[in-house]
Amino acid sequence: MDELKERIRKEGKVLPGNIIKIDGFLNHRVDVKLMRSIAKEFARLFDTTGITKVLTVEASGIPIGTITAEELGVPLVYAKKAKSDNIEGGLLRSEIYSYTYKKKVTLLVSSNWLTSDDKVLVVDDFLANGEALSGIVDIINQAGAELIGMGVAVEKGFQPGGAKLRGMGINLKSLAIIESADENGIVFREAIY
Amino acid sequence: MDELKERIRKEGKVLPGNIIKIDGFLNHRVDVKLMRSIAKEFARLFDTTGITKVLTVEASGIPIGTITAEELGVPLVYAKKAKSDNIEGGLLRSEIYSYTYKKKVTLLVSSNWLTSDDKVLVVDDFLANGEALSGIVDIINQAGAELIGMGVAVEKGFQPGGAKLRGMGINLKSLAIIESADENGIVFREAIY
Repeated sequence: MDELKERIRKEGKVLPGNIIKIDGFLNHRVDVKLMRSIAKEFARLFDTTGITKVLTVEASGIPIGTITAEELGVPLVYAKKAKSDNIEGGLLRSEIYSYTYKKKVTLLVSSNWLTSDDKVLVVDDFLANGEALSGIVDIINQAGAELIGMGVAVEKGFQPGGAKLRGMGINLKSLAIIESADENGIVFREAIY
Repeated sequence: MDELKERIRKEGKVLPGNIIKIDGFLNHRVDVKLMRSIAKEFARLFDTTGITKVLTVEASGIPIGTITAEELGVPLVYAKKAKSDNIEGGLLRSEIYSYTYKKKVTLLVSSNWLTSDDKVLVVDDFLANGEALSGIVDIINQAGAELIGMGVAVEKGFQPGGAKLRGMGINLKSLAIIESADENGIVFREAIY
């Protein structure tokens, strides 16, 4: 998606340790117009016939999730990250390793809001190691719901998440795949959908 | 806002300890159509002339914040909740007590994304003790930004947050103010804007 790649090129900051900071439009300050363009691109790329929900992970997936859900005319469900040991009943859960928090985190979705009647599109802002999205797949399987595809705004192609999820047979489409990012600039992988 | 009150009456569950659960449309499964109605109501209730940003708090404020920002044609900024001791520089911060997590939490907003040039509308899904929203006011003051008003979907009128914020002179408008909630049902405060 050229508009997104252009924004990453113009506004992205490459920090040591392959960290790409794009918090000026994606995940702190959020350009909601760009989110609408991304949502329209997801609507174009996936066959969303019969879809019942858009699913994402708190917190940074929620802006894209909200607008994609509105674009597709279905509700959004976002997985919560458990912060306490007091986890109530009736919850689907998956334990993942969070590279952001450097510890294990439990993803939670109420079994009221994800069932075997659901047909879901998963969306997220960022894909690197794929821990959170693997946890979501685990939760969808527990619910017996159907995963129609996974739409990601920015994938770090040099980290293993994308290959892992595609290897599981998931229809994953990332709108910008960063092949490398260093002092010489950002190189994108060609991906034609 | 009648549509919102009707949904709370129909789908809200009153749990022991004055907890009102409306996670079926507001803050876990999200009815994005209702979020659009709420955003339009905020646009009607506040004079948003010259507004530069909508500001909210992660995670449950983000759906309403995203759609309100789009409705008003400005970017969204969401305050993050610090989860680690590794807080980088260039951040405005305010320490609050979180009743959800039962511990102190630091709200963070990058000083890149909130400055003295900003004129902001703050929105949130829920107001009870007002800790998070007081922290946001603190951060807005640190930035030297202008707060034009505060729009909340659901206020628990029997908890002190609303009175505290209004006592600070803030133009706070809540679309549904719950006066009491018990086994006899939910009673709303009349508030005509």
